[in-house]
Amino acid sequence: MSDEVRLLPPDLLDLPIGEALFTQRAIRKFKPDQISDEQLKILLDAASKAPNGGNLQLARFLVIRDPARIRAFGKLYKEAWWAKRREGPGWTTIEDIPKSEKTFRSAAQLADEIGEAPVIVLAFAVVSADLGHSVLPAVQNLLLAARALGIGSTLTTLHDVVLPRVFEMFEIPDRAQFYGCIPLGYPRGKFGTTPRRPTAETTYWDTWDRPPPWR
Amino acid sequence: MSDEVRLLPPDLLDLPIGEALFTQRAIRKFKPDQISDEQLKILLDAASKAPNGGNLQLARFLVIRDPARIRAFGKLYKEAWWAKRREGPGWTTIEDIPKSEKTFRSAAQLADEIGEAPVIVLAFAVVSADLGHSVLPAVQNLLLAARALGIGSTLTTLHDVVLPRVFEMFEIPDRAQFYGCIPLGYPRGKFGTTPRRPTAETTYWDTWDRPPPWR
Repeated sequence: MSDEVRLLPPDLLDLPIGEALFTQRAIRKFKPDQISDEQLKILLDAASKAPNGGNLQLARFLVIRDPARIRAFGKLYKEAWWAKRREGPGWTTIEDIPKSEKTFRSAAQLADEIGEAPVIVLAFAVVSADLGHSVLPAVQNLLLAARALGIGSTLTTLHDVVLPRVFEMFEIPDRAQFYGCIPLGYPRGKFGTTPRRPTAETTYWDTWDRPPPWR
Repeated sequence: MSDEVRLLPPDLLDLPIGEALFTQRAIRKFKPDQISDEQLKILLDAASKAPNGGNLQLARFLVIRDPARIRAFGKLYKEAWWAKRREGPGWTTIEDIPKSEKTFRSAAQLADEIGEAPVIVLAFAVVSADLGHSVLPAVQNLLLAARALGIGSTLTTLHDVVLPRVFEMFEIPDRAQFYGCIPLGYPRGKFGTTPRRPTAETTYWDTWDRPPPWR
């Protein structure tokens, strides 16, 4: 193991943080344009700076860059996505998804196209305990840094049914815990604000269900 | 439920995102200075913008603002912190913690002082399933927005032994899942870079254990 380092903020991450936080949205359609290794290093460095339990740094990221591997992974992702939909609402093709379910239709399209994404990042922890606290803040750092570089992404998961094959495909050890799949690419479409319930409805003040002093 | 809204980035969040991401560190010692409701709204709004599964928005934040309630909570936090240390390394007082364990000594001090923090935020999901993906990115948004406003914080948890009493104290329903405790205050001490392993050691390329093209 090398000595630890204290990285400085990269010059390229100069977007005001408010704009990154408030215009981050799921991007599920990508241009074929490549993302450079320099940009990927910035994303992974940003991820590494997130809080993590005891600074034990047990998060690991597998970057899939080889188009043939991305295609092979994409097949499993697609199978997993539809397996979950068959179990849940019973959908088997995109035509089964109601037009009002825009997010699901967009996610179905991602499932079809993810094999063509320029890069896919898989997030893990190398410990068997539940370590979401030490991986998911890092994933959010990665997504925000991508937003700041104009790179689109979304945080998705994988149905358990394909995980053993994904582990085998990338020689991932059994002790690794999988936390998420993050496709990356320049957006077809735009970043922008997302609709949310007012925080007056999702924030409580001193006691559960008591509203905060704002609307 | 009100209609959903599309919030714009607050002017106060103008720090370059690189500086926020790369100089976020755990702040565990706070000045007594108050944090305004306007600032808290910015933090909660930032949290609400994080990705979350299907935009179901199942994260909830309980803001503890009343000093008497913070003190009462602080007693439970302290009991919980030491319960975990007794179970683990067998420490019962701060003198038991080796001087080399700086993070643990600092965390022990937080356990002593958290009852005096200006604000404490508790993070939940209102669903019984594992929803870390829909809460922890929001927590990281909150911490980054705090960093951008010069407000210190750290992401901590609570030992299970005190959770029932915390739920009772704040009338939290059983169906809520607890995800973290975030004390907030202006820092005694400074923000700054944190030591991390080089990402060349925590990033794999196309296959597990294969290094990326950087050092």
